[in-house]
Amino acid sequence: MSLLVSGWIAVDEIETPFGATGASLGGSATFTLFAGALFTDVRLLAAVGPDFPASMRAQLAHPRIDISGLTTEDGTTSRWGAKYGYDLNTREDLYTHVGVNETWQPEVPAAWRDTRSAVLSAAHPYVQRELSGQLTAKRATIMDTIRFYIANWPREILEVLGEATFVTMNDGEARELTGEASIAKATRNLLERGANAVIIKLGEYGAVYATKDEYFVAPGYPLEEVIDPTGAGDAFAGAFMGYLDSVEEITAVEIRRGILYGSTVASFCVEGLGPTRLFTLTRDEVEKRYRTFRALTRVEVDG
Amino acid sequence: MSLLVSGWIAVDEIETPFGATGASLGGSATFTLFAGALFTDVRLLAAVGPDFPASMRAQLAHPRIDISGLTTEDGTTSRWGAKYGYDLNTREDLYTHVGVNETWQPEVPAAWRDTRSAVLSAAHPYVQRELSGQLTAKRATIMDTIRFYIANWPREILEVLGEATFVTMNDGEARELTGEASIAKATRNLLERGANAVIIKLGEYGAVYATKDEYFVAPGYPLEEVIDPTGAGDAFAGAFMGYLDSVEEITAVEIRRGILYGSTVASFCVEGLGPTRLFTLTRDEVEKRYRTFRALTRVEVDG
Repeated sequence: MSLLVSGWIAVDEIETPFGATGASLGGSATFTLFAGALFTDVRLLAAVGPDFPASMRAQLAHPRIDISGLTTEDGTTSRWGAKYGYDLNTREDLYTHVGVNETWQPEVPAAWRDTRSAVLSAAHPYVQRELSGQLTAKRATIMDTIRFYIANWPREILEVLGEATFVTMNDGEARELTGEASIAKATRNLLERGANAVIIKLGEYGAVYATKDEYFVAPGYPLEEVIDPTGAGDAFAGAFMGYLDSVEEITAVEIRRGILYGSTVASFCVEGLGPTRLFTLTRDEVEKRYRTFRALTRVEVDG
Repeated sequence: MSLLVSGWIAVDEIETPFGATGASLGGSATFTLFAGALFTDVRLLAAVGPDFPASMRAQLAHPRIDISGLTTEDGTTSRWGAKYGYDLNTREDLYTHVGVNETWQPEVPAAWRDTRSAVLSAAHPYVQRELSGQLTAKRATIMDTIRFYIANWPREILEVLGEATFVTMNDGEARELTGEASIAKATRNLLERGANAVIIKLGEYGAVYATKDEYFVAPGYPLEEVIDPTGAGDAFAGAFMGYLDSVEEITAVEIRRGILYGSTVASFCVEGLGPTRLFTLTRDEVEKRYRTFRALTRVEVDG
């Protein structure tokens, strides 16, 4: 039982109307790791530069997170700065310094090749395919992508869609990649182009899950206070795959539960600046909110 | 068992990327009436001018719709023209001629004062309060509002919130009326200001229902083809209240079912230009889609 997480470990600077982080630990992998570690043992595969602060490395210490796959490469640690508008619906990317992640070719360590679950966070699609190929005993994987890769390598993304068990992106990205305005149509389009299962994240409105035979729509958890939306999608993927890694068999019901767990953990994530809320989040807190969430989406008393 | 519907009967001209209606039957009451008539007997309380075309009056003929409350007043029939952008997310209101509805003071006919259910569509809040007061045996009512009234009479709307069983508006309107960016907060704000129950319509993302003790989130029905979003909210209200009028007792479960029926009928509504799809929609079609909808929001097999 283990979940491999490949992605960025970065130094983020985020400004929101509710506060600013200053230079602090971030990157897709950070959010995914801590969300996944609520459910299972997690293995980090990522690169930083020699400039990566020891204090941030120390923040990654966690009994269920193995950071022996965090390598130090020549170059600089990835850095990202962003600023949110007053209602958090608009974000301005101030800068993105890709740094070591521009050229780094991740390789799954020999001892980890039998990991049964993996989150392959946004990366060049061929890198994601290569990583997927190195996992020889995988049971389920999820591949995420972002606007940057969609804008530059749309054809390559479509080419590798079938490599993962689940493909995920947000609604705007799905519209952009497929050219379809309707989410239902965009989803079907991705399935027709080879995806095995698609999860479209709708932000505060929840998520849609679809395969050729199934369709599941999960509403968003009704949060009163959102502090910082950064990393919510990565937390979703980490919790979703962490939960699935922990179950005996991946069934349609477990996938639906996993989506609600993903939404639940994402709802905690946005209550803090950067990944800070995830650092202190406990499984008990998750279970409590999960039960509340289930109750407020049920139509029938027994449902 | 009857549902009173007060609102506008209007002549609409709608342009979408998929076609234009030309001058045709519209107005909030039209959508609400036909949606309600799928579940119960409906009574129309509305005003038109002498210019209201006989052909449009003929379109209102329906075995379950009583149009004896449609009065002809001095002045002109309300008219509204709008044009949707290519992805239907942007709408330009080309013109709004309020006509007879500017000064008309609706009065519930004596024989209808014991109607047990009512949809009080968007109107001046004091008109809505007056109508509510005239219903002496009401079991449940819903009050809708729109940006026009929120912009001009926000204080008056807040003053009458408690008059209805349910208050409904869309997410943007709720944000504007309360000044709260989060839907969960806006909802709580409306409850604190006197609403008994609040339904926030989220368009393609579904709806939120809240009272002081309850919270229910229903996702949107995943439609592949949207032709014209006009009237979806009115169709929702008509079906929701029509369904509730038809049940023996209004319980928490019936309200949740009603919200899914409302979303289901709204999802048919947007498949046609103006209210045309509602003219031919049958209860069997509604039941079939309702069951599909229920299945794709269920987490557990038995839920």
